Amino acid sequence: MVDLQERPADAPQREWKDRKYVGQRLPRVDGVDKVTGRMVYGADISLPGMLWGKQLGSPHAHARIVKIDTAKAKALPGVFAVITGEDMPRLVSEISGNEVGGEEFDAASRGKRILAWKKVLFHGEPVAAVAAATGSIADQALSLIEVEYEPLPPVIDPIRALAPDAPLLHENNYAETFAGKADRPGNICRISEIARGDVAQGFAEAAVVVEDTYATAVVHQGYIEPQASLAEFTPQGDLNLWTTTQGSFGVRSGLSSFLHVPAGRIKVTPLEVGGGFGAKGAMGVEPLAALLAHAAGRPVKCVLRRSEVLKATRPAPGSVIHVKIGAREDGTFTALEARMVYDVGGYPGGASGAGMNIGPGPYKWPNARVEGIDVMTNKPSVTAYRAPGGPQAAFAIESVIDRIAVQLGMDPIEVRLRNAVAQGDRAINDVEWVRVGFKEALEAVRSHPCWTEPVPAPSQPGRKRGRGVAAGFWGGGVGTSTAEIHFAEDGAVRIVTGSVDLTGCRSAVCQIAAEALDVPFEKVGIKTEATDAVAFNDGTGGSRLTLSLGTAVYRAAVDAREKLRLRAAQQLKADERDVVEEDSRYYARSAPELSFTRQQVIRRSMNSGDGPVVGAGNTTHLKRAPAFAVQVAEVEVDEETGQTWVVRMTGCQDVGCAINPDLCEGQIQGSIVQGIGWALTEGYVYDERGLLRNPSLLDYRKLTSLDVPNIDCILVEVPAEESPYGVRGTGEVNIVPTLAAVGNAIYDAIGVQLTETPFSAERVLAAMQQGEPASRYRGVDIGAILAGTAAAGAVPDMAEIPCEEETVAETRAVPAARAGEEASYTQTEG
Amino acid sequence: MVDLQERPADAPQREWKDRKYVGQRLPRVDGVDKVTGRMVYGADISLPGMLWGKQLGSPHAHARIVKIDTAKAKALPGVFAVITGEDMPRLVSEISGNEVGGEEFDAASRGKRILAWKKVLFHGEPVAAVAAATGSIADQALSLIEVEYEPLPPVIDPIRALAPDAPLLHENNYAETFAGKADRPGNICRISEIARGDVAQGFAEAAVVVEDTYATAVVHQGYIEPQASLAEFTPQGDLNLWTTTQGSFGVRSGLSSFLHVPAGRIKVTPLEVGGGFGAKGAMGVEPLAALLAHAAGRPVKCVLRRSEVLKATRPAPGSVIHVKIGAREDGTFTALEARMVYDVGGYPGGASGAGMNIGPGPYKWPNARVEGIDVMTNKPSVTAYRAPGGPQAAFAIESVIDRIAVQLGMDPIEVRLRNAVAQGDRAINDVEWVRVGFKEALEAVRSHPCWTEPVPAPSQPGRKRGRGVAAGFWGGGVGTSTAEIHFAEDGAVRIVTGSVDLTGCRSAVCQIAAEALDVPFEKVGIKTEATDAVAFNDGTGGSRLTLSLGTAVYRAAVDAREKLRLRAAQQLKADERDVVEEDSRYYARSAPELSFTRQQVIRRSMNSGDGPVVGAGNTTHLKRAPAFAVQVAEVEVDEETGQTWVVRMTGCQDVGCAINPDLCEGQIQGSIVQGIGWALTEGYVYDERGLLRNPSLLDYRKLTSLDVPNIDCILVEVPAEESPYGVRGTGEVNIVPTLAAVGNAIYDAIGVQLTETPFSAERVLAAMQQGEPASRYRGVDIGAILAGTAAAGAVPDMAEIPCEEETVAETRAVPAARAGEEASYTQTEG
Repeated sequence: MVDLQERPADAPQREWKDRKYVGQRLPRVDGVDKVTGRMVYGADISLPGMLWGKQLGSPHAHARIVKIDTAKAKALPGVFAVITGEDMPRLVSEISGNEVGGEEFDAASRGKRILAWKKVLFHGEPVAAVAAATGSIADQALSLIEVEYEPLPPVIDPIRALAPDAPLLHENNYAETFAGKADRPGNICRISEIARGDVAQGFAEAAVVVEDTYATAVVHQGYIEPQASLAEFTPQGDLNLWTTTQGSFGVRSGLSSFLHVPAGRIKVTPLEVGGGFGAKGAMGVEPLAALLAHAAGRPVKCVLRRSEVLKATRPAPGSVIHVKIGAREDGTFTALEARMVYDVGGYPGGASGAGMNIGPGPYKWPNARVEGIDVMTNKPSVTAYRAPGGPQAAFAIESVIDRIAVQLGMDPIEVRLRNAVAQGDRAINDVEWVRVGFKEALEAVRSHPCWTEPVPAPSQPGRKRGRGVAAGFWGGGVGTSTAEIHFAEDGAVRIVTGSVDLTGCRSAVCQIAAEALDVPFEKVGIKTEATDAVAFNDGTGGSRLTLSLGTAVYRAAVDAREKLRLRAAQQLKADERDVVEEDSRYYARSAPELSFTRQQVIRRSMNSGDGPVVGAGNTTHLKRAPAFAVQVAEVEVDEETGQTWVVRMTGCQDVGCAINPDLCEGQIQGSIVQGIGWALTEGYVYDERGLLRNPSLLDYRKLTSLDVPNIDCILVEVPAEESPYGVRGTGEVNIVPTLAAVGNAIYDAIGVQLTETPFSAERVLAAMQQGEPASRYRGVDIGAILAGTAAAGAVPDMAEIPCEEETVAETRAVPAARAGEEASYTQTEG
Repeated sequence: MVDLQERPADAPQREWKDRKYVGQRLPRVDGVDKVTGRMVYGADISLPGMLWGKQLGSPHAHARIVKIDTAKAKALPGVFAVITGEDMPRLVSEISGNEVGGEEFDAASRGKRILAWKKVLFHGEPVAAVAAATGSIADQALSLIEVEYEPLPPVIDPIRALAPDAPLLHENNYAETFAGKADRPGNICRISEIARGDVAQGFAEAAVVVEDTYATAVVHQGYIEPQASLAEFTPQGDLNLWTTTQGSFGVRSGLSSFLHVPAGRIKVTPLEVGGGFGAKGAMGVEPLAALLAHAAGRPVKCVLRRSEVLKATRPAPGSVIHVKIGAREDGTFTALEARMVYDVGGYPGGASGAGMNIGPGPYKWPNARVEGIDVMTNKPSVTAYRAPGGPQAAFAIESVIDRIAVQLGMDPIEVRLRNAVAQGDRAINDVEWVRVGFKEALEAVRSHPCWTEPVPAPSQPGRKRGRGVAAGFWGGGVGTSTAEIHFAEDGAVRIVTGSVDLTGCRSAVCQIAAEALDVPFEKVGIKTEATDAVAFNDGTGGSRLTLSLGTAVYRAAVDAREKLRLRAAQQLKADERDVVEEDSRYYARSAPELSFTRQQVIRRSMNSGDGPVVGAGNTTHLKRAPAFAVQVAEVEVDEETGQTWVVRMTGCQDVGCAINPDLCEGQIQGSIVQGIGWALTEGYVYDERGLLRNPSLLDYRKLTSLDVPNIDCILVEVPAEESPYGVRGTGEVNIVPTLAAVGNAIYDAIGVQLTETPFSAERVLAAMQQGEPASRYRGVDIGAILAGTAAAGAVPDMAEIPCEEETVAETRAVPAARAGEEASYTQTEG
């Protein structure tokens, strides 16, 4: 085991200045390829004889499929295959050579229902697909498919979906809780709970108690590149797949399971990802491309339309979260009670588990009770989106904390500092905190001009200006990464891995390799290989890659460097204990007159002794490297229209070690831009029939560069405990506080705290006019609704199951929910 | 070090019957891809914006280039670059960023003269090249290039080229010998010598002495796929190259040296080889594609025309070899004297070294003196062709041996058996023989019906029928191979290497892996990766791959299997010394009730402990695994026309271990077909101006399937000493005896031994009519010519340098020639 912690925790930063590559603002290794259009993305691969696959979406949000007539479509010249959900058992049976019945498609699993099975459950759900010689023939064929539906009433609102009389999506879905399974079907997937201490006692000790209900809309990750996959079966029946994905091995095992084909007969080549943000960790069009390729007997490429991306891929869950927090006069929190409803869309899934941990995460809670409810509605299934589950929960909790600060007349950063977690504290799930830099980040912001300078006057008359702060936490992913290091004759280094890059980690791990090997950065390259050429790698997500792949690369570099030294000893005919490396030159201390350069040792090794030097490294389990972000937003609000602009934004993160500060700042800025969009403009708009009204980038209003100010970044470096150079992930935590920071700034500007996103001009104007936020969920008693559902038998009566004993920390959750944090950054495949 | 020798040398073959995969006639792993057209060959890769590169060949065999005017060609729309030899220093300087002058192109090196430099030295030598948007524009541009030549007298005959008054190719070529360098330039590259014992004394002891001069024509390897390369420079100036090659790392280092670019900035992706036979071990159009890609600023693909393949790639050398052998009454050889002139074409090279070792190789020579002379003529440079140098030398020696047998009235197999080498004997270069199976092969043939049955009557009236035998030897290549073994979740195995397959070794090493891992053969796959994704591998050649890569794979398998066992011990929480594998299931002997399957261990390893299991293996130096072939040919000769058919053919090789008998037989049969073509029909035909008269497959008469009989194969298995399962290479040795076997059969049929290939109808008829062979070289005193050249100062006077002392074996050769055997299967780049 290599000691990764080269810098002691308390070493001042200047001691690091002798590092050559780590910590430097070096250019991205993939930058030129990206800006010159050379990078090969999902849609960029074609094969001879390839067909185009397209899908037909449901025009209904909820309907029974009575009949699908594909005859006309099949008769169209240039059409090679038309398939529907009904064909899936036959196709999978043919592909696998095993009889596969319809039972597994009866199970309510989005992962199985590549095409709708008997019912459609959301607007745009694929019901049929074609493979044709050209895209326009495929489009024409789609228009010739006749589908007869029996429409059913949809349920769009997650709170409505909880009720026992709500339209039922799946007749075989029984809510799971720690008390067991429900007696009758319902829309609730599961209810889990984390409890600690005595919440009633905690609130009794509080000087101030604030509670409210916060809601967020369904939002899309907004990646530029649509899902795109090319599938081909070899004459032997093996599957070759090229796809844009966050994890090629996950696609391989997912397809293996879906197609009933052994993993070794599937090869997945991961192409460059044009934005994933979690969404491409889930399976996209890969299974459809495979089914079509088999049905058509030709390679098939599927590239989604933008409207399909918005309608029928997996966005982030909407949420309705009730939070109640008590605090003493000095700001110390005494209790937290929260009920978090996450809308997982049309198929079972788990989204609340992550929010339950991330929302309360930054603070010490002597008493807490957090309940998570995953409920289905007639919307697309959800999946990860940058710190999945986090922004929703943090929006609620950080908003309430702001109101506590106001009521106590305290600096809101001071309130957070008073409760901030540090190493050795216990999280609400009783896990002991490793070394973290939350307090350091809060202090860095408190002393930064973004906070110390008074809020300036509005930039224009007729506007109000306000400032808000919020914090966020992300546990940090771990998982398996593997890397090898090869050398060319000139000493150039090539890192080979199966891990996919999303955020610039390629560059960061090249910097790590350059540093650990003492090789010029320009001589280090990295290559991601297909699943048949490298060892297993988990998918990229959870902000894990620089930590996990970085560790694998660091270990491979240390391995390679030691092998070079040993090989030099052989070549020098010297005792290996006597041979040292100095300035990339090897010599025996006892006979320093003879020495070999690194390049000489590499070259000689190619044809002698134990052969070419290959460094190998991997990680399976590392300590997590939790990350904390603190953000200060300044907004201006138009008093007449309610329109709101974020005019100043500062983001601070404890990055552990900024391997490349440019890349860290890029992640902070990108996250914040997405967070501001979520706060101000983004959200799925459904009509009363459950149809998505804004499935285009024109109507689904993402921010542009004109909508956001420059974002100042503050990098704090408190090294993670088990990590190369102490690095922490930066990809996700920085979106966690943004909604709340913007909301708190609006609160500061207009005196009313909004409780539902997006903070549209209408909502802000209404809040200004009415003196209170306009939210559909204010005052809705979720507990009472759940009690009614329990009474109807669609949820087990949890009150019947008392806590078994009074302990300081008790987690009452079904096993799946206990793994909630894990699930938060990996795909929760139904 | 793994014990590769699982079968003791003397174990009877039936003990091997419990092997599951080694020794089986399993289907080729690449067979389906090859017959369905899925395999990606040299010309099959294209890039967006790619141009077509074409070359202009010289219409003269020997001329000074006075002037090249490219203006009209450059002005043609669609032309992106027109380059000539004069541009090379500038282009290389630009590509490398270093000033490169013309000096290195002045050196007489074919590897540097990608385009002719000041002179053209053979018909078809490239003098200019263009890159254009289409092939037809490129052709048109070539026709617009105006070249002014000053023709010089050519020299085509290698014996003529030896003479001091022969036209001089290079004014800076000074013959090298063990006596030093010559005083004045000439066409001889080098003269080397191997001497042993006292030759005069040997001949004095002989009862019979036979001598004659044998000649072979220049022949082409005749691969179906022309040279094809695609070169692209990245915006950063790195070179990406896709090419059909026997060795991607050799291409990388060759280009690195030619372009003055560090190897790490060059990536070579080896594509499938549509026939190489040694020729694609040399650099082909790769440098030209790179120069054009740089000059044009776009990717450029070069695919040679068939006439360019024949005119301007590197065929096998023609030869004129004088041999004199003495033998006692009982057939024991007393002395060998040989002078071997190899025609290396227009640029310096070494071809005789291999023949000097291979020709005499199979026999014990108490006294021997073999001289090798490499001489230049106005023909293309030569390179390896299946056992390079061997067929020429074996033709001469095996022909003389046949005549000795006739003169002694002995069975020619008996004569060979009496002199055959065995383990412990010394070769003429004094190397001690390892375990070989030559005697076993001779005995197998002697007792085979092909030899025991009497020669049947001719199949038609007017024909004569005869039978001949010959033997051949190939030392066997070694060198670096590396391989990794990865597992998928289902236990499927993927071998990853950088080695290129030519002959079916992929299948053989998959069988080795299946056997060593005990995994079903269908679950084993293999992938050849580009130079930037795997460790160094030497090129494929010298019949080394099944031995060398097979050893690497075997070692990787053993490594992986042991790692799986250790990992199982961890997972079983058992002492690793206690854990055993049985039927792909792991358990602790002390607690056998708990066990894990191989698949379970693989799956668990992916996310635990030391990570995914990867087996790694490599070889750098192994003991050679020499191979011997014995062949019996039966011919029929038309008495009226001289046309000759091979009507029956039997090939026997000691293959060590037939990993896959089908593949071994394929190599024997393919080699023999090429050998029969060389014997009967093939050969470069030059006119008096030095122009090649038959640069097309219509005129360069290769055999077709109608020209050859079925070829019976006899596989003898005497395991090699340091080799997986004892395997020996089969790719080359089987072409060594064929010319002589066919020639000896004709001798048997018509009573005259032919001494020059091809044995065309004209030559056979003339021999029948004249009672002696028609050869230009019969009676030519090469020694006298060399003495004249030495007298003129163009060769150092070797007589001046006496053997330093009388030892049993003495090798007098310049260092380069000492490495002759090595050079025989690797590219001798000028």
